[in-house]
This record gives sequence, C-alpha cells and structure tokens, in this order.
Amino acid sequence: MAASPNPLSPEIGTDRLYNFSAGPGTLPTSVLQEVREELPVYRNVGASIMEISHRSAAYDAVEEGARQHLRRLLGLGDDWHILFLQGGASMQFHQVPLNFLPEDGVADYVLTGRWSVKALREAKRIGEARTVASSEDDGFTTIPDRDTWDLSPEAAYLHITSNNTVHGTQFSGDPQAEVPIVTDASSEILSRPMDLEPYGLIYAGAQKNMGPAGVTLVLVHDAFLQQRKDHLPTMLDYGTHAERRFNTPPVFPIYVVEKVLRWLLDQGGVEAMQTLKQQKASMLYERVDRTDFYKGIVAPEARSTMNAVFTLHDEALEPLFLQNAAKAGLVNLKGHRSVGGLRASMYNALPVEAVEALVDFMDDFERTHG
Amino acid sequence: MAASPNPLSPEIGTDRLYNFSAGPGTLPTSVLQEVREELPVYRNVGASIMEISHRSAAYDAVEEGARQHLRRLLGLGDDWHILFLQGGASMQFHQVPLNFLPEDGVADYVLTGRWSVKALREAKRIGEARTVASSEDDGFTTIPDRDTWDLSPEAAYLHITSNNTVHGTQFSGDPQAEVPIVTDASSEILSRPMDLEPYGLIYAGAQKNMGPAGVTLVLVHDAFLQQRKDHLPTMLDYGTHAERRFNTPPVFPIYVVEKVLRWLLDQGGVEAMQTLKQQKASMLYERVDRTDFYKGIVAPEARSTMNAVFTLHDEALEPLFLQNAAKAGLVNLKGHRSVGGLRASMYNALPVEAVEALVDFMDDFERTHG
Repeated sequence: MAASPNPLSPEIGTDRLYNFSAGPGTLPTSVLQEVREELPVYRNVGASIMEISHRSAAYDAVEEGARQHLRRLLGLGDDWHILFLQGGASMQFHQVPLNFLPEDGVADYVLTGRWSVKALREAKRIGEARTVASSEDDGFTTIPDRDTWDLSPEAAYLHITSNNTVHGTQFSGDPQAEVPIVTDASSEILSRPMDLEPYGLIYAGAQKNMGPAGVTLVLVHDAFLQQRKDHLPTMLDYGTHAERRFNTPPVFPIYVVEKVLRWLLDQGGVEAMQTLKQQKASMLYERVDRTDFYKGIVAPEARSTMNAVFTLHDEALEPLFLQNAAKAGLVNLKGHRSVGGLRASMYNALPVEAVEALVDFMDDFERTHG
Repeated sequence: MAASPNPLSPEIGTDRLYNFSAGPGTLPTSVLQEVREELPVYRNVGASIMEISHRSAAYDAVEEGARQHLRRLLGLGDDWHILFLQGGASMQFHQVPLNFLPEDGVADYVLTGRWSVKALREAKRIGEARTVASSEDDGFTTIPDRDTWDLSPEAAYLHITSNNTVHGTQFSGDPQAEVPIVTDASSEILSRPMDLEPYGLIYAGAQKNMGPAGVTLVLVHDAFLQQRKDHLPTMLDYGTHAERRFNTPPVFPIYVVEKVLRWLLDQGGVEAMQTLKQQKASMLYERVDRTDFYKGIVAPEARSTMNAVFTLHDEALEPLFLQNAAKAGLVNLKGHRSVGGLRASMYNALPVEAVEALVDFMDDFERTHG
C-alpha cells in the first residue's frame, strides 16, 4: 500500500484518488475506515463479521439495521418487503418475469439502453414481453416521451431502467402507469426521494450507489408479491426471501451496505443526496457546454445526474485526457466500451470537491490543447 | 472493538477466540490482517478493491490469481472451468438440474442429510429425480453403503453431498459411478486431494472452508458442460460464465478467497490440510469416545473430519457446557437447530491449538460435572 498522501484530497484520507468509476463505484472513506477498524475482530464476538453465523444476534442486528435505514431513507411502509439477494441486476432480468409474467400474459418494456435490452431479452424467454417504447433509433441518447408509450392495459407489469449508466440518460422522476411498474434503479437508487406508489418492485445492484458488489436490493410491494406465479424454484421465488432468511446471505456486502445507509442518514438522507447530485451534475454539464471543446452526447432533457457521458470535440485527444486526468488524481473516467468517450459517474459518495477538481482539470486541459 | 488480547490465543491476534462456527466459518487471521492493511486503499489504485471496475487490471489479477491457485491446489486441467457464481449451494440445487436434467431424462440423488434432501426437492421441480440411496431411516447418522445404491444407468448425473455439516457425516473419499457425479462439496472442499475423474461438476459455497459468504465456486468439466440443455436463462446457464466474465462478480468475497487459497498453498496445499484435519478430528473423537460422559451420534465409519457432532450423556448440561466453553474462549459450538447437541466445525483455518484447547476444556468440564 502506498503511503504518500494525495495532495488533491488530503481530507479524504491516505492516497485515495477521486474515483469516477461507473461501478463498482466509490464508497464513503469513513465507511472503509470503519470496516478496517472492525478487522480482524468485530466488536465483542471474537471473530470478524465474515466468520460468524448468519443466524447470530450480531449479524442479525446488521441486516435488520440495514432494513430499518432503508425504511427511513425511502419511506417504505410495512407493505414493502426488503430483500437482499444475489446475482446482480442481471439475475433480476430473469427473476422478475419468472415470478410475474404469466404464461398467457404480457409484460411491457421501455427500452432506454443496454441494460433494458438485456432485461427484455430474458423476459422473452419466459413469455410475451413487448417493447412499448424505445430510444434505440436515437442511439439511446433520449428517454422516450411518456405520451408515446404504447402500453398494454392488461400487462402484468411495466419495466423501466430509471438511469442508464452506459448511455448517461435518466428518467425524470417516477413515471405513472395503470399497471405496477418494475424498475431497475441500480445506478440511481437512494439519490433522491421516490414516489413509491407506481411501483410493484424496485431492484438495484448495490455496487453503484449503495455498497460493494455481491448484493442486490429488491424492494417488493406485498400486493404485487401476491401476484407471483406458483411452483417457482425456491431460491428464485421472491416469496421465499420475503418470508424468512432462507440461506446464507452475502454477509460482508450487506455489512458494508448497512454502514453506507447509516452514512446516508447522517448526511441528511435522500433529500440531501438530491441536492448534492444536482449541484455536481450542474457544475459538470455547465463546463461541458461552456465551449465547443467538450461535447455532450445526450439530449439535454435526458441527461443523467449520476453518469455524465461526454466526448472531446477532437476525439483523438481522449487518451491524453484520461492519462493527464489520472496524473491529476482523477481516475476511472473512460466511457463504457460499447459507446466510448468519457464518463464521469457521480454517485452519492463522490464528494463535490471531486467534480470541482474535474472541472478545473477540464479547464486546464482545454487551455493547453484547445 | 475490545483491545484486550485473548490469553488463550496470543498467537492468533487481538482478542480472536477459537471459532468452531459451522459456517460462515473461521478464516486465517493473516488473511484478515492483509484485508485490513489494504483498506481504504488497495495497492496503487487509489481506491479500495470494492470501488474499482470488475474489468480493471487490478481486479482481473485477483480473480485470475484465485483460478490459478485452485488449479494448483486441486490439479485442475484446462478441461475444467472455474466459475465464481452467486446464490450459494441453494442456488446450485436449482441450477444443476436446470442445466443438466433433460425433460425426458432422469437424475440420481443419494440422500445423506438436510442439504441433499433440499437438492432433491429442487431437482423434482425440473424433472425426474430419483432417490437411489438414503440414510434417512438412520436419522442421517450413516452414509449408505456404495454397494446398495440403486443407480440408473441412463441418469444424466448422480448427485451427492460429500460432507454433511448438520449431521456430521462424510463420504470416505470419492465414489465411483458410470455416470458423471455432481457433488456439493461446500463443507469439505480443499480439505484433501480429490480424484477428479468421477466428477462432472463440483460446487461449494465459499463460506465454510474457503472464504466469506457471497461466492459459490463451481468447477465444471468441459465434456459435462457440453451436455447442458439449450435455451437456458442467461445468468443460470453455466456456459455463460464459462465463456466470459458476464456481469459484476462478488468482488470482495472473491478477493478474500484468493487470499485464503494463497494461504492454503503456503501451508502446503490440500495434502497438508488432509494431515491437519485428520489430526484434529482424531484428537476430538478420541476425547468424545474416551468416557461415557460425551457421546458421538454418528456411525464411527461415517464420522466427518470437518464437523464433529456429539452430545453430553446428560443433555441437560449442554447449556452450561456452551456457556463455560465461551468463557474459556471456545465459541460457536452449538449444534444445528434441527438436530441439537454440540458441533465442533474444524475447517482448514481452525488451528490445531483450538482443538487442543477444546479437548482440555472437555476434560475439565467432565471432571467438574461428571
């Protein structure tokens, strides 16, 4: 481990850089310090949190703590089940239709990028899944206007991807529909207050805005849960996990999530995160738009507050941009391999100072190479 | 975190107790120290291992390192795929028949305890799964004699649970069969050299003998993999994961597993672990058998070297035994809730000194209460 402090960020601890990774993403330094302090022994249990039964009182307090924090942060009532599953959003692409798309039924999908296309593909293996709107013809740089969605009144659910990490687009707020909405909220959950009413199920891999990889949060409304099919494989039946802690959960990832959620509450909750993300996103997009040197790709009204995707007017300069940014302590700014360009992911734990430093760097880089 | 060193185990670090947990189980202290040292920054990446892309060079080296260690430890050739999946053994109970039990085929199951019963139940949801031998009538205190197994020559596979954590029984070595064997090796993997030839697939939740909860090791032979069914859900198709790193893996659990595997190599590999486990198990069972005060439950020839299940002749003394053992720094000795009694799990990372301390405690307890 390098010992030299990072001059750019003395306040965030030993040689930590400003990390714009799209996921797994940056975590609060204080959370990592707490994890460190609880190794190799967690409190008074004589072992680390990784080495004790998932049915012990010590672990139980962690998992129940995480649930309570989530209820407070999102205003979840008792009619919402909070499940900590495994397999990431990719497993949810299968599990959602397996549970909720009846053999003679239909499910509606709005396509806004790479992940929703994958979700639709898995649903089609199960039953009739329809594309009710798509921004594919725009290269996924827009969010289809709500008025144009060709919804099925009889759909079991409507599936959306609320924030598109790869393409840098985002739904504005919570859409409404006649049928329960299922949303992949992996890359924006807990970044704003949500209107829960339209939703039947909300899922999110933890590794973007909530914790480390290896746990998937599923919030499922009880009325929607009751609509699930019969005779499901035990592990893939949401009812199994709503009923009890069925098998060994991913203890360590959940343990870190609990700490991140506690940190979120200390920061002022999702309202504070919303203010913060708007501040960070405004600052960055304003810089992108200020001159022609940088170029936003996404339709302005569809721009994501979590993942800002942009390019250089002269794309040949991108490798140098990334190289110099890293030298300046700004890392993981490369765009997704499927779209290229640059991407700054600004999850909850990314401090505003990181975006300030990025904007300063972008100014400098333009001065030198513009 | 308590600061007082544990007088019983000064050599294993600050107030760590001897931890006989059946799973999640004890880990090498040196591994936990290494994790601690790599927080909040992993080597030169400017972030912890939890906050960087699973497609980064730094993470890639971790996962590939774990694969290489496994190849060395178990002698796995290139015809074996090494997959790091999620969902635990419980997900494998579904995924194995989903991939390998054809609609018009049959799979054979040997029932030796709680987990194999669950595996059979999931297989029956998929197709025809037969019980070819069972020790249920003995309360799962035996392993059915190999000569009595009523095997189907046309079975797609034969499923066994090689070590039964709850009941404290174990197959002796690797059984042979005409069809590929699938084994749940969760609680004994890497505790001995294996004859790989009879196997098509070997699976193991990491949290007993290999690392923290949240990652499931699947070793699948290529010839067996090619027998899988078509049109599987992407995430549940072993072929997806054999082909490439499909989605975000459980980074931190795999990172710890890599360290445990490296530690295993440093200790002398699975041969050394076999010697060690025989030493530990002999010592404990000899103590159990020495007088009538303690009582082994399991048929002597079926006794597990990993999980020793026993009782006190006077069962009313068990709560006091557990309480005094904990005071002596010996923790997590309670039997599984479904069978009661006492259980000492002696996974690879449990030092021989822990079993010596337990035997001494058992002597003392008998002197006082016998």
